[in-house]
Amino acid sequence: MDTTEFRRRGKEMVDLIADYLENIEQRTVYPDVEPGYLRSLIPEEAPEDPDTYEDVVKDIERVIMPGVTHWHSPYFYAYFPTANSFPAMLADMLSGAIGCIGFSWAASPACTELETVMMDWLGKMLKLPEDFIAGTHGQGGGVIQGTASEATLVALLAARCRAVRMILASDPQRPETGITSKLVAYSSDQAHCSVERAGMIAGVRMKKIPTDQSDKYAVQGETLRRMIQEDKAAGLIPFYFCATLGTTPSCAFDHITELGPICNAEKIWMHIDAAYAGSSFICPEFRPLLNGIEFADSFNFNAHKWLLVNFDCSTMWVKKRSDLIGAFKMDPLYLKHDHQESGRYFCTDNSLFRSLKMWFVFRMYGLKGLQDYIRKGSNEVNETLLKRINNGRKIHLVPCLLSGQFVLRFALCARTTESRHIREAWRLITQLAEEVMQELPH
Amino acid sequence: MDTTEFRRRGKEMVDLIADYLENIEQRTVYPDVEPGYLRSLIPEEAPEDPDTYEDVVKDIERVIMPGVTHWHSPYFYAYFPTANSFPAMLADMLSGAIGCIGFSWAASPACTELETVMMDWLGKMLKLPEDFIAGTHGQGGGVIQGTASEATLVALLAARCRAVRMILASDPQRPETGITSKLVAYSSDQAHCSVERAGMIAGVRMKKIPTDQSDKYAVQGETLRRMIQEDKAAGLIPFYFCATLGTTPSCAFDHITELGPICNAEKIWMHIDAAYAGSSFICPEFRPLLNGIEFADSFNFNAHKWLLVNFDCSTMWVKKRSDLIGAFKMDPLYLKHDHQESGRYFCTDNSLFRSLKMWFVFRMYGLKGLQDYIRKGSNEVNETLLKRINNGRKIHLVPCLLSGQFVLRFALCARTTESRHIREAWRLITQLAEEVMQELPH
Repeated sequence: MDTTEFRRRGKEMVDLIADYLENIEQRTVYPDVEPGYLRSLIPEEAPEDPDTYEDVVKDIERVIMPGVTHWHSPYFYAYFPTANSFPAMLADMLSGAIGCIGFSWAASPACTELETVMMDWLGKMLKLPEDFIAGTHGQGGGVIQGTASEATLVALLAARCRAVRMILASDPQRPETGITSKLVAYSSDQAHCSVERAGMIAGVRMKKIPTDQSDKYAVQGETLRRMIQEDKAAGLIPFYFCATLGTTPSCAFDHITELGPICNAEKIWMHIDAAYAGSSFICPEFRPLLNGIEFADSFNFNAHKWLLVNFDCSTMWVKKRSDLIGAFKMDPLYLKHDHQESGRYFCTDNSLFRSLKMWFVFRMYGLKGLQDYIRKGSNEVNETLLKRINNGRKIHLVPCLLSGQFVLRFALCARTTESRHIREAWRLITQLAEEVMQELPH
Repeated sequence: MDTTEFRRRGKEMVDLIADYLENIEQRTVYPDVEPGYLRSLIPEEAPEDPDTYEDVVKDIERVIMPGVTHWHSPYFYAYFPTANSFPAMLADMLSGAIGCIGFSWAASPACTELETVMMDWLGKMLKLPEDFIAGTHGQGGGVIQGTASEATLVALLAARCRAVRMILASDPQRPETGITSKLVAYSSDQAHCSVERAGMIAGVRMKKIPTDQSDKYAVQGETLRRMIQEDKAAGLIPFYFCATLGTTPSCAFDHITELGPICNAEKIWMHIDAAYAGSSFICPEFRPLLNGIEFADSFNFNAHKWLLVNFDCSTMWVKKRSDLIGAFKMDPLYLKHDHQESGRYFCTDNSLFRSLKMWFVFRMYGLKGLQDYIRKGSNEVNETLLKRINNGRKIHLVPCLLSGQFVLRFALCARTTESRHIREAWRLITQLAEEVMQELPH
């Protein structure tokens, strides 16, 4: 395929993609196939001579689509969302064509620098403490990872490295393996399974902190404090705590304002995993949920979940870049270049030009557009709904304003109101809300 | 941006990409910028309100391109190649639109199944031993990783898990941390720095096996055998050896036919890292370089380097899938589904639909097309070159046929031939070769 044919095939592919996304609602969201369905549909070996492009495209519907779980169908409510926006797709096309691998500044300066600046942009949208912003002279900053699992592991390895160094500094004779075998990390018993796996990979003890329904499955400071004391008494070395803001099962938020000071006092690395919930913190009304971030050593969420930046784009910040760089530093001669300034830039091994899609998305939506997307609604929508409800004259309510948000007040007033009246009112409200939402521009 | 606008912008982007790649030769391959060049070219914060798409596109030339190292410029000879083919780009566009994450079979059956079958296709192209092919009943098979570094680490972690289990099976009372602190892994002193880093991450001892120029920097069986004996005598537990086929500095090939039997006898996991060289083994004339693969537990190379499948696509095979799956297994309820058949499919955490680009590339090139690309030449080209040389009548040589390859024989015949004659002949041959290559269809 030469460039001329690519111009034609690329445009056909753009239409195929647009058609797919426009009509995705008609497809069965969860495929009705049995394991092994695909193998029998295609040859057992690659062709010796090329197939035609037409045949390949025909096979998308015949072979692939019957087995696709359609993550972007409006009927998809499993797992978590994965972002899919047109600006991000356009940026990814460009990224694929530039096709550089940014494992060092010199390997593609634009790639490394745009990533640093985009992570600052996003950090500012989240109102992260200044410590996490790289700027021109900061010690902290952000780096894109593939997944939250990766970020959890990277933070844990950096924490392990820092802990070993601190202990060796005060006791240089102690053998390193003897230290590692005493290290203990903590996370909620509600944390994602990848946190436990990070402990397995790093070969360190990982303890689950018990939570229960009485506190909405959140980790409390008191519980952590007690475990730390017990473990220290038993000769162990607490070094890492992974807090979760928005757990996978029930969206529980660990009490980081209580937990952070404990970790700081004990020199325990606090990593905050807000994989799904994190995107919402760009809205001022949700930002209080991130209070306590000032105590954290590292913080991560998946922009590729809920911030319209296509997979993969898991955004991670640390207060001290040197903690991360120091833990993984390798300086072979073939990666040396004139502008080697270690400590200035993060570079990850397997990164294409992922910051391009952040740039496209942030600019094409603007902060307000992204906030609207998180809210999926606005004061205006709520006002319209209230007007519609009251004009119907079946039920009657009045609004209030809470922190700038137009809120519909539903008060139980009449002495004669029964459950059935409330159920009827709720049916009416949801029906009218649906109508209002459907009339919105897409 | 709605679907209608995406149709338009997508087609413009296809043209922008085609223009970029058609004219890449005119760009400066290594950018002339200083660290920090980009920050001053764009605002310090994301816009509140959306920018126009036109402005974003204009900034590609103003902000991005001046800082790009052009990996696909014909003048780029640094690091290693990263693949960039039109069929792979088309497949990546589709993959981005489907935007599924294949962390389990149910998360998108087509994604998981096509990957398994494509890895079989590629394994057959490489004539891998049957043990590495999944088929419908095999115990081995392939899985796509992001990078060779990732594959090295994954293999090491699986090896660590297997070693600990084997020891616990014979000595169940032994504490696990006591085992880990005795483990020792090996690799060549010429191995890529990521091998050493894998040892750091896993928290195990990693020893470098000395090599030298006298054996072209390859690891020899005898050296490994001696180190194993010494380490065992010192109470250590050898468990992992990473062999390299084609080292980063000098393309050295470790003697895997000698090393493999030693590893097998000592129950040491042998991983083969052929990151760059691996693609060439699809040509029968290079396949002998992979002899000894039958002794390996795992094998990896980067299809995204030299096999026209865009980054990322690091292809890894193991003889026992259960070794890998067992080392990382986590079964949270939210990932359970009706067709959970552990041991049947590999699923990696961070995979989009990467097998789609393998499928497009394998079909659009065919095995022969891929072999031609590796050879970057053919018998016909060599014949044309010879004809051109002899027609010039300045020097004279004759051909021979070696294993089906048309080879130009250069024999020193005349008593009076001096160095200067040979240098002159070589200049003429390279000049004519360049002319012949330039006349080839792109």
